[in-house]
Amino acid sequence: MKEKVDVKWQDEMAFEASLHENTQKIMIDAVPAVGGRNLGPRPKTLMLVSLGGCTAMDVISILKKMRVTPDYFNVEVEGELTEEHPKYFHSITVNYIFRGKDLPMDKIEKAVKLSEERYCGVTEMLKKSSKITSNIIVED
Amino acid sequence: MKEKVDVKWQDEMAFEASLHENTQKIMIDAVPAVGGRNLGPRPKTLMLVSLGGCTAMDVISILKKMRVTPDYFNVEVEGELTEEHPKYFHSITVNYIFRGKDLPMDKIEKAVKLSEERYCGVTEMLKKSSKITSNIIVED
Repeated sequence: MKEKVDVKWQDEMAFEASLHENTQKIMIDAVPAVGGRNLGPRPKTLMLVSLGGCTAMDVISILKKMRVTPDYFNVEVEGELTEEHPKYFHSITVNYIFRGKDLPMDKIEKAVKLSEERYCGVTEMLKKSSKITSNIIVED
Repeated sequence: MKEKVDVKWQDEMAFEASLHENTQKIMIDAVPAVGGRNLGPRPKTLMLVSLGGCTAMDVISILKKMRVTPDYFNVEVEGELTEEHPKYFHSITVNYIFRGKDLPMDKIEKAVKLSEERYCGVTEMLKKSSKITSNIIVED
């Protein structure tokens, strides 16, 4: 299967991304320090969103099959950039935060593990250059 | 330097990403085939936007220093997914498309090469798992 996007220059450091599978557009921009105007997220920030979204969707759909529904589910992703060019995330921490009554820890751990080891294609790609650490946090 | 995002579950397969450096939010969703409602881009699509945006910003800022301003600049990114889980982009094609009068091909080639080999952190990360091919297309 193929996926395609266009990233079209607007002006200065602003670009508009068009996604071929739907009509949505995303503006991306740089920060003022490098000539941007912060009109949208930076490209590298989107990479963290991509990782968080990929594993979050795996986990919620696996939990649904296990008939587990949290009241709240948030995936926090924090990346640390190298100092030298090319600047990339040498380490990434993924915190899976759940809230709900009597959530079954064993099922949650299994869902996260299945995503990390078997289903999440973004994790598969990024783990070759980043040390990815994850934590499961269940709040009552 | 650290960057952080939150990817918070809304309902079904929809998640809202909050970017800590600005107030923008991005909705992400899955396609109907896997229980989504197409309310936003898929996580893997964002990875292609991240790659296209990263290299596009490098190229336009290097060209600016060289005093080259295209009339039009678009970076087309096409990724091909593996058939088996975890599904990831085993190959990615990046087309740099320029329009403008008398654009200097040598400077454009140099700018693209500097991004690919020295500056683009997203390229650096993805090339460990994807075969990345690029083309420069200059239209008059």
